[in-house]
Amino acid sequence: MIARLLAAVALAALPAAALADTLVDNINGLSVDRDGKVTHFSAMVIDDRGRISQVIGNGERPPQNIDYRENGRGRTVIPGMIDAHVHVMALGLAQLTVDLSDTRSLAEAQAKIAAYAAANPERPWIVGRGWNQEQWGLGRFPTAAELDAAVSDRPVWLERVDGHAGWANSVAISVSGVTAATADPAGGRVERLPGGKQPAGVFVDAAMDLVGKNVPPPRATDRDVALHKAQELLVRNGVTAVADMGTSIEDWMTFRRAGDEGRLRVRIMAYASSVPDMVLIGGSGPTQWLYEDRLRLNGLKLYLDGALGSRGAMLKAPYADDPANKGLPVINGTQLRNNMSRAAMDDYQVAIHAIGDAANAEALDAIEELSADYTGDRRWRIEHAQIVDPADIPRFGQHGVIASMQPVHQTSDRLMAEARLGPDRLAGAYAWRSLHDAGAPLAFGSDAPVEAPEPFVGIAAAITREDAQGQPPGGWHPEQRLTREEALAAYTSGAAYAGFAEGRFGRLAAGERADFLVLDTDPLTADPSDLRNVRVLETWIGGEKVYDASPEERRSVEGPGR
Amino acid sequence: MIARLLAAVALAALPAAALADTLVDNINGLSVDRDGKVTHFSAMVIDDRGRISQVIGNGERPPQNIDYRENGRGRTVIPGMIDAHVHVMALGLAQLTVDLSDTRSLAEAQAKIAAYAAANPERPWIVGRGWNQEQWGLGRFPTAAELDAAVSDRPVWLERVDGHAGWANSVAISVSGVTAATADPAGGRVERLPGGKQPAGVFVDAAMDLVGKNVPPPRATDRDVALHKAQELLVRNGVTAVADMGTSIEDWMTFRRAGDEGRLRVRIMAYASSVPDMVLIGGSGPTQWLYEDRLRLNGLKLYLDGALGSRGAMLKAPYADDPANKGLPVINGTQLRNNMSRAAMDDYQVAIHAIGDAANAEALDAIEELSADYTGDRRWRIEHAQIVDPADIPRFGQHGVIASMQPVHQTSDRLMAEARLGPDRLAGAYAWRSLHDAGAPLAFGSDAPVEAPEPFVGIAAAITREDAQGQPPGGWHPEQRLTREEALAAYTSGAAYAGFAEGRFGRLAAGERADFLVLDTDPLTADPSDLRNVRVLETWIGGEKVYDASPEERRSVEGPGR
Repeated sequence: MIARLLAAVALAALPAAALADTLVDNINGLSVDRDGKVTHFSAMVIDDRGRISQVIGNGERPPQNIDYRENGRGRTVIPGMIDAHVHVMALGLAQLTVDLSDTRSLAEAQAKIAAYAAANPERPWIVGRGWNQEQWGLGRFPTAAELDAAVSDRPVWLERVDGHAGWANSVAISVSGVTAATADPAGGRVERLPGGKQPAGVFVDAAMDLVGKNVPPPRATDRDVALHKAQELLVRNGVTAVADMGTSIEDWMTFRRAGDEGRLRVRIMAYASSVPDMVLIGGSGPTQWLYEDRLRLNGLKLYLDGALGSRGAMLKAPYADDPANKGLPVINGTQLRNNMSRAAMDDYQVAIHAIGDAANAEALDAIEELSADYTGDRRWRIEHAQIVDPADIPRFGQHGVIASMQPVHQTSDRLMAEARLGPDRLAGAYAWRSLHDAGAPLAFGSDAPVEAPEPFVGIAAAITREDAQGQPPGGWHPEQRLTREEALAAYTSGAAYAGFAEGRFGRLAAGERADFLVLDTDPLTADPSDLRNVRVLETWIGGEKVYDASPEERRSVEGPGR
Repeated sequence: MIARLLAAVALAALPAAALADTLVDNINGLSVDRDGKVTHFSAMVIDDRGRISQVIGNGERPPQNIDYRENGRGRTVIPGMIDAHVHVMALGLAQLTVDLSDTRSLAEAQAKIAAYAAANPERPWIVGRGWNQEQWGLGRFPTAAELDAAVSDRPVWLERVDGHAGWANSVAISVSGVTAATADPAGGRVERLPGGKQPAGVFVDAAMDLVGKNVPPPRATDRDVALHKAQELLVRNGVTAVADMGTSIEDWMTFRRAGDEGRLRVRIMAYASSVPDMVLIGGSGPTQWLYEDRLRLNGLKLYLDGALGSRGAMLKAPYADDPANKGLPVINGTQLRNNMSRAAMDDYQVAIHAIGDAANAEALDAIEELSADYTGDRRWRIEHAQIVDPADIPRFGQHGVIASMQPVHQTSDRLMAEARLGPDRLAGAYAWRSLHDAGAPLAFGSDAPVEAPEPFVGIAAAITREDAQGQPPGGWHPEQRLTREEALAAYTSGAAYAGFAEGRFGRLAAGERADFLVLDTDPLTADPSDLRNVRVLETWIGGEKVYDASPEERRSVEGPGR
C-alpha cells in the first residue's frame, strides 16, 4: 500500500528533466553573493547534468546552439531557498498525523478524524493533535465514546492543542490496559465517567503517558512517506536545500533509501544527533557529497541549553519573570568541549544549539579554546543565537562563527522575550544586524516543524521586524533590520556557506547546480506584505522542475504536447 | 594516519581501468552455466561501463573497432569466484590482529609482537591470537614481563591457540584493574607469580573476561581498514563477489563508505544480522543494487542451531559421542517462523543457518509452511546444510531451497563428524551430490574467516572429497563427489543465482559484469592437486584489474611505459 502510494506519488511528481542544454530566458534573474552584492541577468543556460553553464546579463546575446528553450515570460527567477535549520523527519512525520487545530466543533473534528482514518487504512494507530474543546464551544472534555464514533477499529490518540492532555478512543484505552482500577499517576489525572471510575477518554498531564507510551514508533515505510511529504512541503515553499539539525541513523538511512531510489530531491546537509550516530554514518570524517550534491553528513549537532518559553535557556542573569532561575545546561562545559573535540579531530563541523546569553557565551568560550587546537576552516555554527550579550557579539566575528538564526522566531517570541528578559536585556536579542556587522556569517532558517518552513515569511521578518499583522508598526527593535539583499543572502549563499556548499549551490552562477525558483513577485522591490505572500510558481532543483503551481503549466502537462 | 594509509593503499592498487572498449583475446576462456554446461571462447570485448559486450568463440573473428587490446597470452580466463558464505568484516578485522600460530619460540613471538606494534603505532590495544607455549618448548605459561619486553607502551591481549587462555602485558592488567586482591572467578583462574598473589600474565577460561572485556570495540577507521584488508585477501584468492552472512548496521555503513568513496571493489550481497538491522537498512524491502552491482541488501540471516564441534548442532538422534545430547536450538520454531514471515512479507530473502539434521528438517518444515503464504521466487537458503536426513533431501528440490555449502568443511570436519554421528548417519553429511541430484540449487563458499576464502581449495574438495594431504585416498564418501563443471558452477553462476544476481555477474556472457580471473591452470583439466594450488595471476572486477600477481605485469607497472 505504502509502496504503491510512493510509486504513484513519484509518477505524479515526475520532473520535467532538462535532458540537454536548456536556455531559460526572458527572466528577471537575480542572485545574491554572501556580501549582499546582487547580480541581475535575463537568461541562463543549464547543461545536461543540471548545472548552470552560463548566466547571460541583460543586453547580452544568448547562445544559439541550445536544445530546449524555457520561456520565463518575464518572471522573477531567484536561487532556491536554503533553510539552514530544519528537522526534516519531524517535519515529515508531523504530516502523517491529523491536525485538528482548525476544527470549530466536535462534529467537525469527528468528521476529519474519520476521513483521515479512511484515507489511511494501513496506519496501525491514528495519531494527531490540536483539538481544543473551548474552540468547539463544548464546555467539557470530549469522551472516548465520541471518538469511537469516528474510529472504532484501531487505537486513536490525539493531543490537545497545548500538549497538556490526550484524547483516546476505547481501543487505545483497552490496549493500554487502563481500567477503572488504574490509579491517577503523580502529576496526572485520568478523566472518569460520571458515577464511576471508568476512564472517560481524556488523560491530563502525567497521565498522558499511560496511553501515549503505547503509540508505536514510526515504521520504515512511515519514514519513507514522511520524507516524501516533507520534500513536498519544502519545494512548495521554494526550499531546495536544508540543514537537517539532529540526524539519527534512522533518519540517515531514510535519506539514503530516497537517494538510492531517485526520490531525494531536496538537498540535505546533515548534522548527526549524537557522536555515535556521527561516527556510525561518517566513519573517520564527513561523508562525500552524495547523489549529485543532494546529501552529505557535515558534522554534529549539540544541544547546550533549552528554550526561552520553558525557561530552559541559560541566562547570565535570572529570568525577569522567574528571579530564582537562570535556566539549565543540557550538557556541561566539559561535555560540550569533549563532544566538540571528538567531532573536530575528524574534521566534522560542529553546530551548537545556544538560545540564552549564557549559553552563547559558553559556546563562544569553547570555540575560542578549541580553535587553538583545531585550526583551519572550521565554520563553527551557533544555532539560534537568540539572546546574546552585546559584549559577546564581536566574538562571533573574531572566530568566523556562523550565526544560524530563524527570523520568524523573533516575531513569534517577542512578547515572551520581553517577559523573560525585561526591557533592558534586549539589545542582543535576535540581533542579526549586530551579528552581521560584527562579521558573523549569517544563515537563516525556520526550525521547522517548530515554525512553518516559509522562507519569504522569514525574509519579511528579517527586513521589517514586524509580524504578519504588521506588529509592532515600524518593527521591534528596528535597528536590527537587515536589507533585502542581506536577508536573501542569508537564505541562499550564506546558508550554503554555513554548510560548506558554496560553489555547489546557493547562487545562480556558472558551475553551480541549477536550483531556482520562479516567483510572481520580485523580492528586491516588493512591498513587505507582498513579499510575505510571494507565490512560488515553480521550483527547480538540479535543472529539474520539482514543483509547478502555475495553471498554464498544469494544462500543458495534461495536454497532448507532453 | 589511517586515512593516509588507506589513501596510499588505494593509490598502489589503482586499477588499470578499461576506459573504452577493450578486447581481451588470445585466451582459453570458459564460463559455466548453472546446469554445468560450459562455454569455451577465445576472446571477449568489455565496454566502457565494465560490462562484457561480446564473447567470441574459438575460430570466430574478433571485432576490429576496439580501443585497447589485452593479450591473454593463451592463459585460462574464468569468471570471478563468488563465495556464497563469508563474514566480511570478521575476516577483515582478523587481519588487524597479530597471528602467533606460526611462532616456534617465545623470542620469535616477542619479535613478531614488537614488530606489529611498531608497524601499528595508532592502534590503542595490540590484540592477537594463536600462541602455544608447548609449540615454543617453554614448558610453562609466558609472563606479563615477557610481553612487556615486546610492548610496554600500550595494553596487549593475546589469546591462546585454543581460545581457552589469554596473555596480557602489565599495561593491560593495570587498565583492567586486576591486582593481587582480585579473586579467581568461578570457572576461571588467574595465574599468579611465584610466592605471591600478583597476577602473572595469563588468564584461564572464565578469568579471560577480566582483561578481554576491556579490549575496545573496533573504531570506524578500523572497520574501514579491515574492509580494505578483506578485499585484498579476497581478490588475491580470485573472489570477486561474496554473500555477507550477518551484516550489522556498522558493517553496512562501512560498505557504504567504501562504495561512496570508490573503495568498494568486491561485490557484496548482504544478509542482515537481525530484523531491526534489516529494516533499518532496507526499509520496506531489499535495497537497490548499488555502486554498479557492488552492494545490495538481499535479506536476513537467521541462526537456527549451533555447530557440530561444540555439539550445538540440532540432531534428530543423540550425539554418538554424547548420548544424552541432541544439540540446542538458537531460536525456537515460532521465532524462526516469525522472523521468516517478517522478512518475507517485505520480499526480503531468508538465509537460515542449519547444521544438524533436526535443524535442517525444521528449516524445511518452516519453508514448506511459509511457501503457502509467500509465493513467487523466494529462493529460501539453508546455510551449511551439513547433516541432512536422507529422507529430507528431496524436500530441498521440491521447494527450490538453495543449499549454501562450504566444501572445505567436509575435509576439515570429517573425523569429528564421524565421532559425533557414528558411521551409520553419514549418508546425508556434506551431501552435495545428493542435494544437487535432488534439484537443490548449490551455492558454494568458505565461511571465512572460519576457513580461508580459497575457492580452488573448495573446488578440489568438492570433486575429490580428499583433503590437502590426499586423505582419505579415493575420497570420503566419494559417491558425493561433483564434477568439475558442477563445482565451478556452484562457485560462479550458482552462487550468483543464490543472491538474485544472475544476469549481473557470475558468468562471462554478454551483458554481465566483466568479473574474471586469469589463471596459470585450466581448472577443467588440471590434476586435483594442481587445482588446489592454482595461481590467480590477475583478478578483474567490472572491467578493472584489481589484482595482479604476474611479475611481468609488475615490471611493466614500474617501467616507463605506464
